[in-house]
Amino acid sequence: MSAVDFLSLATAGVQGLHPYQPGKPIEELQRELGLSRIVKLASNENPLGSSQKGVAAAAGEIPGIHIYPDDNGFRLRNKLAERHGVAPEQLVLGSGSSDVIDMAARSFLGPGVNAVYSEHAFAMYAIYTQASGAAAKVAPALPADNPQSPHGHDLDALAARVDEKTRVVFIANPNNPTGGWLREAPLKAFIDALPSRVIVVLDEAYTEYVEEEDFPNGLRWLDDYPNLLVTRTFSKIHGLAGLRVGYGVASPELAAVVNRVRAPFNVNSAALAAAEAALDDEAFVQRSRENNRQGLAQLSSGCDELGLAWIPSVGNFLCIDMGRPAGPVFDALLREGVIVRPVANYGLPNHLRVTVGTPEENAFFLRALERVL
Amino acid sequence: MSAVDFLSLATAGVQGLHPYQPGKPIEELQRELGLSRIVKLASNENPLGSSQKGVAAAAGEIPGIHIYPDDNGFRLRNKLAERHGVAPEQLVLGSGSSDVIDMAARSFLGPGVNAVYSEHAFAMYAIYTQASGAAAKVAPALPADNPQSPHGHDLDALAARVDEKTRVVFIANPNNPTGGWLREAPLKAFIDALPSRVIVVLDEAYTEYVEEEDFPNGLRWLDDYPNLLVTRTFSKIHGLAGLRVGYGVASPELAAVVNRVRAPFNVNSAALAAAEAALDDEAFVQRSRENNRQGLAQLSSGCDELGLAWIPSVGNFLCIDMGRPAGPVFDALLREGVIVRPVANYGLPNHLRVTVGTPEENAFFLRALERVL
Repeated sequence: MSAVDFLSLATAGVQGLHPYQPGKPIEELQRELGLSRIVKLASNENPLGSSQKGVAAAAGEIPGIHIYPDDNGFRLRNKLAERHGVAPEQLVLGSGSSDVIDMAARSFLGPGVNAVYSEHAFAMYAIYTQASGAAAKVAPALPADNPQSPHGHDLDALAARVDEKTRVVFIANPNNPTGGWLREAPLKAFIDALPSRVIVVLDEAYTEYVEEEDFPNGLRWLDDYPNLLVTRTFSKIHGLAGLRVGYGVASPELAAVVNRVRAPFNVNSAALAAAEAALDDEAFVQRSRENNRQGLAQLSSGCDELGLAWIPSVGNFLCIDMGRPAGPVFDALLREGVIVRPVANYGLPNHLRVTVGTPEENAFFLRALERVL
Repeated sequence: MSAVDFLSLATAGVQGLHPYQPGKPIEELQRELGLSRIVKLASNENPLGSSQKGVAAAAGEIPGIHIYPDDNGFRLRNKLAERHGVAPEQLVLGSGSSDVIDMAARSFLGPGVNAVYSEHAFAMYAIYTQASGAAAKVAPALPADNPQSPHGHDLDALAARVDEKTRVVFIANPNNPTGGWLREAPLKAFIDALPSRVIVVLDEAYTEYVEEEDFPNGLRWLDDYPNLLVTRTFSKIHGLAGLRVGYGVASPELAAVVNRVRAPFNVNSAALAAAEAALDDEAFVQRSRENNRQGLAQLSSGCDELGLAWIPSVGNFLCIDMGRPAGPVFDALLREGVIVRPVANYGLPNHLRVTVGTPEENAFFLRALERVL
């Protein structure tokens, strides 16, 4: 049998995807580098762990895991609907909110149409768009010296890229990896001016961390904009990243379309139960928010002392300008036992994104950074 | 704002998908019907529960669920590779094997090409094909009175439907919901005769239950057929349906393409650990197989006594011909506290698919069926 080039048989979108780059678990890295301790500040996980209510609920599901999950996520959907004052059929449950974003892309994107998003925005928007075969129209970000939002979403530039073939606009608020955010009035005006046939995916993965007064809650706009899909996750402030659960909220009409491509049983039983319980743990959310506020202050003042610039952040991470190519700094930090996130693939080759840890982890990172620089 | 028909904006494939039908959890049904006990023999779950090694490993992961899963599934991939004598890069991990089948569809199917599968085959082949926008070429099944495999895959009919636009052939062995199976020599000859540019997705979700001598193991053919993707699941004999984990094995070249569309973190931490541990629990697999053998005999002789025909099965379920439209029988069984699976949507309107339960559950079902008929 002659060799077949399977990639040439794949869809055009898949042919253009960057191949998957496997990583190594911490334990492997630890063994390879011979380190006694590794502090991982790379994935915007919650340094306080998980809601103990969530943990207990997940553990309670384990003895029954021979049974398929409730495909409809009946209880979690109802609880979220009640919490947010929407109907259960407005919910789209996902294996993390990235799953919901993927569902939106699969529903509306394909060859011949396009998606609009910003430079430096969350990497999955580009990947889902590419996988679908749709064209990507990427708006340049605000300049680095913009006083309100350096490297932030430029709403005018985004609006200018929307044309009659645009099906989806992806917006992250706050944005990852920059940490910047969009204020209520301009974001609402942006959505208001869009043709109602353009789906707006408003990714609010980090919204629970934000304490700024002028920060919008996209869920309040659902009645006004049937074309709006707001996504949220349990991976960040709720500390359930390992279980994979998130959700989207939209008009019943839009949610019905997106739910068509939802995979059966896409949220596992432990995740459904943990998410439901975590919603009741407001104390844990509060503590996480507090730790984050203090950690952001600790990291940013530590950077100031080292003479490093950083992008003002309302997320649970800080994007720090190393003032030089960040790759070697990343490598050196790794040898010091600190894993952070290089963001060269986000068009920020001099920055490293650092997740807010516990006070002790933040100090560990700052000491390592000082030694490395 | 005028009302927008979002479905008309969706991709052609999604427009043709049948909308998602939400179900209700057992507890809801129990309350509604006022039943003290419900026996669910509807989803081919393992009536013996899960491997206790798997359960313990999953429970051990719960305290660390604020951390993302190992995206690469390093340890599970290596363990599966060792078990099956393949390289780790030949593995594709999925959130259930349906996720892997979906990935194959997303990689190779789209408008302008087609997929080939059999009538009465697993329903997701049709759904994934439709979602992609590809055409479906459905081969009629063998007739109901075929002595070897009533309602089974007709390999000649399948081969006849493969044309130059065929990208994927889906084959289930054994097939769900019929329970029939393909023997080694004819299946190998079928694959051998296919052009090497046609991907064969060989779905072996129920393979661990089969004890027939002439039953093939698709993994042994991987060296001969770089276009072969064999899928397996932990949802059935391993009893991990609630956690969502399965896998595919293919040539490194084919696996690399399919892995391109794998969602990040698609297998959660508890599932990765449970699957790894379950692979070591050969005693549980053995016990499950034994319970299944006895249960199939119990169900089929019970049907014989009731004068009902059934399709010979090597899976963990029996497809029973009610000799009349099965819908009312299904409803009546529900009121007796037994949930089974109607298969009218599989083109078998007179059949009900019944999962093999414990001896006591099987007897409970047979008594209910006798009352109902």
